[in-house]
Amino acid sequence: MTKTDSPQPLANKTSTTNSQQPGKKQIRKKSENMSEWYTDVILKAKIADYSPVRGSMVLRPYGFAIWERIREELDKKLAQLGCQNSYFPLFIPMSLLEKEKSHVEGFSPELAVVTHGGGQELEEPLVVRPTSETIMYEMYSRWIHSYRDLPLCLNQWNNVVRWEKRTQFFLRSMEFLWQEAHTVHESHQEAQQMVLSALDAYAEIAQDLLAIPVLKGVKSESEKFAGAFQTVTIEALMPDGKALQSGTSHDLGQNFSRAFNIVFQDQQGENQFAWQTSFGLSTRIMGGLIMTHGDDQGLVFPPQVAPIQVSLLPVRTDDYRLVEYCKLLKSRLEKKGVRCEVDDREKLSFGYRLNDAELRGIPLRVEIGPKELNAAEIQIAVRHLHEKRKLAVATFEEGVEKLLAWIQQDMFTKAKERVKSMTYEVDNFEDFKRIMKENRGLIKAYWDETPETEAKIKEITKATTRCVLLDEPESEGLCVYSGQPAKRRWYFAQAY
Amino acid sequence: MTKTDSPQPLANKTSTTNSQQPGKKQIRKKSENMSEWYTDVILKAKIADYSPVRGSMVLRPYGFAIWERIREELDKKLAQLGCQNSYFPLFIPMSLLEKEKSHVEGFSPELAVVTHGGGQELEEPLVVRPTSETIMYEMYSRWIHSYRDLPLCLNQWNNVVRWEKRTQFFLRSMEFLWQEAHTVHESHQEAQQMVLSALDAYAEIAQDLLAIPVLKGVKSESEKFAGAFQTVTIEALMPDGKALQSGTSHDLGQNFSRAFNIVFQDQQGENQFAWQTSFGLSTRIMGGLIMTHGDDQGLVFPPQVAPIQVSLLPVRTDDYRLVEYCKLLKSRLEKKGVRCEVDDREKLSFGYRLNDAELRGIPLRVEIGPKELNAAEIQIAVRHLHEKRKLAVATFEEGVEKLLAWIQQDMFTKAKERVKSMTYEVDNFEDFKRIMKENRGLIKAYWDETPETEAKIKEITKATTRCVLLDEPESEGLCVYSGQPAKRRWYFAQAY
Repeated sequence: MTKTDSPQPLANKTSTTNSQQPGKKQIRKKSENMSEWYTDVILKAKIADYSPVRGSMVLRPYGFAIWERIREELDKKLAQLGCQNSYFPLFIPMSLLEKEKSHVEGFSPELAVVTHGGGQELEEPLVVRPTSETIMYEMYSRWIHSYRDLPLCLNQWNNVVRWEKRTQFFLRSMEFLWQEAHTVHESHQEAQQMVLSALDAYAEIAQDLLAIPVLKGVKSESEKFAGAFQTVTIEALMPDGKALQSGTSHDLGQNFSRAFNIVFQDQQGENQFAWQTSFGLSTRIMGGLIMTHGDDQGLVFPPQVAPIQVSLLPVRTDDYRLVEYCKLLKSRLEKKGVRCEVDDREKLSFGYRLNDAELRGIPLRVEIGPKELNAAEIQIAVRHLHEKRKLAVATFEEGVEKLLAWIQQDMFTKAKERVKSMTYEVDNFEDFKRIMKENRGLIKAYWDETPETEAKIKEITKATTRCVLLDEPESEGLCVYSGQPAKRRWYFAQAY
Repeated sequence: MTKTDSPQPLANKTSTTNSQQPGKKQIRKKSENMSEWYTDVILKAKIADYSPVRGSMVLRPYGFAIWERIREELDKKLAQLGCQNSYFPLFIPMSLLEKEKSHVEGFSPELAVVTHGGGQELEEPLVVRPTSETIMYEMYSRWIHSYRDLPLCLNQWNNVVRWEKRTQFFLRSMEFLWQEAHTVHESHQEAQQMVLSALDAYAEIAQDLLAIPVLKGVKSESEKFAGAFQTVTIEALMPDGKALQSGTSHDLGQNFSRAFNIVFQDQQGENQFAWQTSFGLSTRIMGGLIMTHGDDQGLVFPPQVAPIQVSLLPVRTDDYRLVEYCKLLKSRLEKKGVRCEVDDREKLSFGYRLNDAELRGIPLRVEIGPKELNAAEIQIAVRHLHEKRKLAVATFEEGVEKLLAWIQQDMFTKAKERVKSMTYEVDNFEDFKRIMKENRGLIKAYWDETPETEAKIKEITKATTRCVLLDEPESEGLCVYSGQPAKRRWYFAQAY
């Protein structure tokens, strides 16, 4: 693949149709051009579609089901961290947004502004939330008075708007869905613990649910969240060699509590500014899921997140014995909690339905013809390997369960091996430039940690600092660009 | 109660605090002034709060948990109807909204309009969705080509904005949360069936989950949805005698399919305009829940919807035996799926915690003191009756389960009796006026079904037509206002 293979802009193009007509799959090859493949597979598998609003997309049921799976699992993890769900207004008065200086500077180029309501011009414009720090913290300052009110940990699952010039399905869109949690603590230490626990939860979602390997690290000063003291991140590497920031967790220090006057009386009776965090994970990670695992035949979903784990296909839909046998197997699997479908759509050929199951990335596929009705073993097609396995009918459920668990693990292992093969430890800038030009991928290199060097490297190679690992040991080295003393290797990559 | 007792406007007032300081409950009495009580109980029980944005509210965790319960149950019912979840953009181009004439006329006074994005004035203003017919149907017209693409039934759980002059917690707010489902069918009959099935689902949510009795009926021409062929509704009656429209389901006929060119080829190969429906239920119904069941001590939640069904209170929080015993009972109840809490918040007196459990409307409360540790029976306080019952410890879980089921039923029965006592069959306009002035409530009366009479009755009594029952038989009568022949009794009430 070449450097120009990244997904195309999300413009208002002709959309796909819903039509269930037999026909060719018509997706271009990932192995030849990931960018074209990415758009094709999203449209043809009915994950999402272009909308009449430039830069916004429509999330269709099959795509939304993926988000629901992520939400379900992450919601449990956030509850374990003590976060409670809540809902705050979509609109933020401009004056509130301006309370924290670096925050408004970071977001002001991206704002959508409501100037008219109910047929009248508003006295004060309202901003459509790009994130909810300011409106939530205004409320926090009203609610928090004593250490007894802490910790306060609220989460929202909502939609936010950031005006983007170049948009792409999932990776960058004007409106997106996410969760944003905002927590308040008595001490910096407790806040820092929450920042790291949240990052762990995100890494588990990425790795255990989505089988996307991630680095857990700290962002540089220039890459951190607008208004944060420190930002930590999970970073994934896509098959085209570009990095995808997939979830961030921010130590806000006392920056916002000072701006919003969030003060509590501590156990000694002294007034203190509170310590805060915020962290968010968005539908963006679905772009990472699609790119990480898909192949020339279409999507490939890891079983944990797959809305449908097993597709049961009667070879002929007009033979009731085949359809009934599929339904029997389905009910046996559902008793074990396996998510499955019988695809007995009439008027669609077997070949079409088979290709469609592949396109939709369903981890396992079972084809039931007359021979299978009396067989003691059934063949089952493993999507990510393009191989078939045999399972005993007597222990079919157990066989499927084991296979699903193994697929999840195997897909993660393969993804880790790919990332490893695209990661380079580099000690001179010529190699750095060459790798970024020829291969892209992740470069691990010493950096003097000055913004000047960071900007120069970006200017020359388009690579930005992604993060320094949380557990990266200090060592002695020379900056790959400036030759100045440096103490830690950082990860660099071109990024979405 | 008098006519001025309805909930107060949702202005930007001083909000409540989060502080867990012992103190008086400070809620005014429902029996004296429901309006003041309604605001107090929402603020003090931390259901919601005023926000910095006029007309928008903050949904706090305890209030949001109620919405999550409603969402969970309704989502299952909608899936059974064949609806799939999806997500469409928040912004709608003004030109799209204008495609269906009566629709845009109905909504244009209530629109919030984005005129600037990314620092620039937009060429075409974007409307913040007041409802999603237009943007969804634009996509439907791209997706639907053949009868094989039908039925198409999509649902969204989202936020919508309608610019309201007078706002109240839940009942009327500028932004609210809801679900909106939009279905497309081959025939009018199939669409009509969906309209009624959706209404049944809403009635089950209201009656079985929330214990709110509702009428199922048809709206008049002037009260139907902007753009609909016909609207059906569930209508509830609040204790102040005002009706609350609690969920609506619309037969859109072919109005929108003609405006948006949603055409399919039928089984005979002919092109046809599709038949459509839409239906929605919002956080508004939470206002109905609060008003229907609350009392002078605070909220009262039916067990099915209560986020916490049983509160276990150690009389002293510094006696570990009491706390441990509460935790033991909690774990026994949780095994049966009962939602419970141990309120062992230190520094809060027993009296405060007891009042707080009442304020929060938790259906059952158990107080554990030293005596209870070795007792074979435990007293349990039933919130809606202010009575205590005894349960054998040996069969505690079963006793609680039975009691919860009975409470659900009893609360619904009592609510039905109240509504019955506030419903009047009226045959002359003097009685109509007197009842609306003195008692409010529901009036069932003959109406000649002309918009002129409807408008006159509204002008004189503030009462509007609420609905005519779906199964109201035709009969012969004279219009209560005009004396003209009329064929059915309609329900009238003043309404939120």
